[in-house]
Amino acid sequence: MLKAAVLGATGNVGQIFVQLLNGHPWFKVSAVAASERSTERTYSEAAKWRQTMPIPEGVADLDVVDIEPKAVKDVDVVFSALPADVAGKTEENFAKAGYVVVSNASAHRMDPDVPLLNPEINCGHVSLIEEQRRKRKWDGAIVTNPNCSASVLTLPLKPIYDEFGINKVVVSTMQAISGAGYPGVPSLDIVDNVIPFIGKEEEKLETETLKVLGSPSEPAGFKVSASCHRVPTLDGHMEAVFVELKREAETESVIAAMENFVGEPQKLKLPTAPEKPVVVRREEDRPQTRLDRMEGNGMSVVVGRVRKDRAFRGVKFVALGHNTIRGAAGCGVLNAEYLKAKKFI
Amino acid sequence: MLKAAVLGATGNVGQIFVQLLNGHPWFKVSAVAASERSTERTYSEAAKWRQTMPIPEGVADLDVVDIEPKAVKDVDVVFSALPADVAGKTEENFAKAGYVVVSNASAHRMDPDVPLLNPEINCGHVSLIEEQRRKRKWDGAIVTNPNCSASVLTLPLKPIYDEFGINKVVVSTMQAISGAGYPGVPSLDIVDNVIPFIGKEEEKLETETLKVLGSPSEPAGFKVSASCHRVPTLDGHMEAVFVELKREAETESVIAAMENFVGEPQKLKLPTAPEKPVVVRREEDRPQTRLDRMEGNGMSVVVGRVRKDRAFRGVKFVALGHNTIRGAAGCGVLNAEYLKAKKFI
Amino acid sequence: MLKAAVLGATGNVGQIFVQLLNGHPWFKVSAVAASERSTERTYSEAAKWRQTMPIPEGVADLDVVDIEPKAVKDVDVVFSALPADVAGKTEENFAKAGYVVVSNASAHRMDPDVPLLNPEINCGHVSLIEEQRRKRKWDGAIVTNPNCSASVLTLPLKPIYDEFGINKVVVSTMQAISGAGYPGVPSLDIVDNVIPFIGKEEEKLETETLKVLGSPSEPAGFKVSASCHRVPTLDGHMEAVFVELKREAETESVIAAMENFVGEPQKLKLPTAPEKPVVVRREEDRPQTRLDRMEGNGMSVVVGRVRKDRAFRGVKFVALGHNTIRGAAGCGVLNAEYLKAKKFI
Amino acid sequence: MLKAAVLGATGNVGQIFVQLLNGHPWFKVSAVAASERSTERTYSEAAKWRQTMPIPEGVADLDVVDIEPKAVKDVDVVFSALPADVAGKTEENFAKAGYVVVSNASAHRMDPDVPLLNPEINCGHVSLIEEQRRKRKWDGAIVTNPNCSASVLTLPLKPIYDEFGINKVVVSTMQAISGAGYPGVPSLDIVDNVIPFIGKEEEKLETETLKVLGSPSEPAGFKVSASCHRVPTLDGHMEAVFVELKREAETESVIAAMENFVGEPQKLKLPTAPEKPVVVRREEDRPQTRLDRMEGNGMSVVVGRVRKDRAFRGVKFVALGHNTIRGAAGCGVLNAEYLKAKKFI
Repeated sequence: MLKAAVLGATGNVGQIFVQLLNGHPWFKVSAVAASERSTERTYSEAAKWRQTMPIPEGVADLDVVDIEPKAVKDVDVVFSALPADVAGKTEENFAKAGYVVVSNASAHRMDPDVPLLNPEINCGHVSLIEEQRRKRKWDGAIVTNPNCSASVLTLPLKPIYDEFGINKVVVSTMQAISGAGYPGVPSLDIVDNVIPFIGKEEEKLETETLKVLGSPSEPAGFKVSASCHRVPTLDGHMEAVFVELKREAETESVIAAMENFVGEPQKLKLPTAPEKPVVVRREEDRPQTRLDRMEGNGMSVVVGRVRKDRAFRGVKFVALGHNTIRGAAGCGVLNAEYLKAKKFI
Repeated sequence: MLKAAVLGATGNVGQIFVQLLNGHPWFKVSAVAASERSTERTYSEAAKWRQTMPIPEGVADLDVVDIEPKAVKDVDVVFSALPADVAGKTEENFAKAGYVVVSNASAHRMDPDVPLLNPEINCGHVSLIEEQRRKRKWDGAIVTNPNCSASVLTLPLKPIYDEFGINKVVVSTMQAISGAGYPGVPSLDIVDNVIPFIGKEEEKLETETLKVLGSPSEPAGFKVSASCHRVPTLDGHMEAVFVELKREAETESVIAAMENFVGEPQKLKLPTAPEKPVVVRREEDRPQTRLDRMEGNGMSVVVGRVRKDRAFRGVKFVALGHNTIRGAAGCGVLNAEYLKAKKFI
Repeated sequence: MLKAAVLGATGNVGQIFVQLLNGHPWFKVSAVAASERSTERTYSEAAKWRQTMPIPEGVADLDVVDIEPKAVKDVDVVFSALPADVAGKTEENFAKAGYVVVSNASAHRMDPDVPLLNPEINCGHVSLIEEQRRKRKWDGAIVTNPNCSASVLTLPLKPIYDEFGINKVVVSTMQAISGAGYPGVPSLDIVDNVIPFIGKEEEKLETETLKVLGSPSEPAGFKVSASCHRVPTLDGHMEAVFVELKREAETESVIAAMENFVGEPQKLKLPTAPEKPVVVRREEDRPQTRLDRMEGNGMSVVVGRVRKDRAFRGVKFVALGHNTIRGAAGCGVLNAEYLKAKKFI
Repeated sequence: MLKAAVLGATGNVGQIFVQLLNGHPWFKVSAVAASERSTERTYSEAAKWRQTMPIPEGVADLDVVDIEPKAVKDVDVVFSALPADVAGKTEENFAKAGYVVVSNASAHRMDPDVPLLNPEINCGHVSLIEEQRRKRKWDGAIVTNPNCSASVLTLPLKPIYDEFGINKVVVSTMQAISGAGYPGVPSLDIVDNVIPFIGKEEEKLETETLKVLGSPSEPAGFKVSASCHRVPTLDGHMEAVFVELKREAETESVIAAMENFVGEPQKLKLPTAPEKPVVVRREEDRPQTRLDRMEGNGMSVVVGRVRKDRAFRGVKFVALGHNTIRGAAGCGVLNAEYLKAKKFI
């Protein structure tokens, strides 16, 4: 068993990391770090645990430590659920101290020498680690997963991009409140409401998508236009996707490409890899956020309503993924599994 | 005062017609018709009144009559809030009996000789009435308003189309539950959920938009691709709109076009015409469904987040309108006001 | 394995029966019956499956049959999720045909010769079956579980009643929308709303509570006053309970009584019996509906905020239970398990 | 016109004060004060205005000043929407400086020499001001209104108490999220949830009710037991009330007492006084939070389901009131109107 630290362990994504690593066959949480307000308390005291499953026993009594390499001893891998402003410097410190940091934070995602992995799509980008170590002169590494809405969007786009080519993508999101963390969105702001703005979300979705679907050195060569909206759901980001294809395609061919898609995590049978990264539903009214967000234990993206587009030579569909699992902690855990399988950890 | 009948008066849109006509300077509800289950009861008995303002006094005690011309006597105009399947034949019967039917139903909207009016945009289409009367050999007329999501979309598109031309429109909607009428959407289907499907809504939005923005005889010459979704809000349809323009345009020019837009109803000072058909907000997080849906007494469309589009030569923005007022009964009342101003009633 | 039929299998509680019996160690669903509209279709076609787990494989392809003994062949036990108006006569027909009917319907709950079992409390009431068979001249039997709100209320009351005696109970409920079945509560009626009325619910709660807590022949001798309200939650009934005790009691003694409470199902280690029928939380803000409703796989009632009452010599607390599991299908399955353990099936 | 200052003007209740005073016939907001973070900005910059009506023109451009008497010049009355911890000392400072402070804060409500007014019930308690001035040696005064849930509860209790006497009251509340202010309740905590705890709310409801219904020098002589719960509604507190009467009463007599109840504000025709402080509905499913909270412009309490109680000699009913209008700012404005009518301002 490898020992894992979780940075930012008391926040919402931190709690999901703790939950997903509970009973994990390879990793065991042995350190939890959080901002000063939390330290000198055990995890069960510091984290206002808000998940429906109970707080894992082995973690409840861990002392919360400071978010510094010297406070986090004797671990084999570091998961970061830090907020972006703290993550930048802190994750570098851990990498300098020799740790492999598997991060959900946005701080380093777009650094050219940092892999941004949605592992079924581009786990080969781990090749950037070598460059990162050389340039930054550290033994550790920072590996990131995409923003929640980009994690969901890129999975169905990958097989389409490979088989038919893409000119343009227009995407409109309906994102859950858990994406804003805790306390996050005030209830007075979202009950009976839609907020058509999420800070920096559109920029992330428009740029990260291309990095994930590109080569290690170059983003994918198409355009993405996003409009991002918060809706009153707890978990699960729904996205309406319009794709202008390079090559004409039958709807059934597009569906087949998505259904047949598997990646390295499936081939390596990584513990957190879902059987199918993309599940296509044929009913006219699926996927639905509440009913389908836990597909593949929250690691599959569920696609539905695949149909011809009237305005483009292309297709349109809706895609749904669990924002704190596939879109955050689950993607991080899968990244760590891949890094271990490839001996980076 | 002109006497008005409301057909389908007990349903949700019927109740909004009754509410909007309460205290109206020109029209007075003097007959309410509903399906057989409702008749032999007064309106207050038959309608399970679900509005926050009280049931209007003059209407509460009206007897509910059958939805037939012979049951509805001595009225000057007929408002129809009938469901589509009943509306087709029934509205024809009323037109044959000499009534001008101002309808919210979809049954006749796409008939080539029936005006589909969002009055600030295309009230000139009333010219079709002459053809309608000649071909159908009746003295009455059927005039319709667009589907709720098309009513909202077309208002901001009109000034853009006129000034810059449009090649393509991609639109993704987040529609309120009141759009499905009553009882409509079961609560078990929509609490903590998004349903990415509304029957026939995308087809209506894609076709009605072009009829409204076209000439009386020909639809507008661009393409619309829609994806329609139900979200857990009570009233107000939010739409994320991506527009590929014919001619390059600065964002500020697009905003100016929308802000300066007025139509015949404003010039004629019709009672229900909002001061501004399109209100543009500059805040980064507006419009919001709950906060802004009553702008202009529910008759204005509120636009926000107007910005350049990354994938198109064009703009993107969000638009919000009240689906049962601007998108249904309010648009119908405004149509009737225009028809009266032009002596059709 | 015993073969089970589910009557009313396509409704919401019927679906929960099917879900809970999936993988059950003793029972296997081999017949599904529903009203005529559903028949001549398979279960997966007839049931609009709305659960988050997939429709169980062995049941999906069963043909839906009519709700009559002759249509349901070769089963060992019959679970009834029928609506009250259908259940009365139909369940009698099944009992006459020799079946043991484990029913969630209200039709026969208050019949003096029909056991109304919340099994940890009063499984001894199965003694009524003998009388039932003799009087009604049938070989089968009807056994019922309480209404959802009574199932939740009676579990914490039982140890209090036994140890301290009860003079009066005042209870105010906050009930989830799934309690009304499907389509049930229209979303327009419940978003941003509380409805302070649920048809016949207060009467059921006031009378069933006393039957469950009484002897087979006589209701418990205290008074219950209920006020029942629908709130916008999906699952889980929260109840504010005020108890006037016969004998003075310390709060900690009341808590201890609830925590130590176990019943026959726990002693017999029945498969569906939760380890603890009543779980007491000490935090000031628990139980919470969404976080705690699945405690004990939805079979435990979670109690919190146990405190002295200002107006009574007594205690007050809140109790939460899952209305379609402990309050309906789960209680039914536990009843069936008890009946099998006691050789009634 | 009298000039009014609003302290804590940028918070949620502060905004409601500003909204209710807009267009008021007697008072005009001429100063807005808020904590340091807000100062050196205009009100429209400092207040994140979240009401559905636009920010009042005359107030939008006022400079936000510090919450000190010297910063607030030249006003005739001070409305306080301060949080409890700030209110205690600050309101005293204003009273010392000679101002009449009409406060919604809890800090001084239970001070024996401070009137706690729900004006239809006990405006005579203003007699305490004389004692307050003498003891505290100031020329100003502090006058408070009750906590939101107590404001709602006491109105229907008053006529019952006067006509039939009361032994005990048990009350269970279902309170809206706006009661917690802004940002207040995180959406992750309340969507699809009930939280059965609101800090200090039960104590306030149990004690303030008796002070309001008592004489200036002595609380009413019955007992109140409360259980308070947060539910997912925006505005409007619903309360299930069980009353043990001193004297036997027919349900219709209780209803008549409530319907006939009026107080001094009605007799004086104060501008904010609703025609009926208590409106009784006869339908089986009213009042409903969303439909009825604006009754009497949010100043009436709507009562429904008045019925015999099974456990007490008494009645039970549900009562609904708007928590930020009748339960906060509206009650404060009505208090100020009364004070002006009686020449205290």
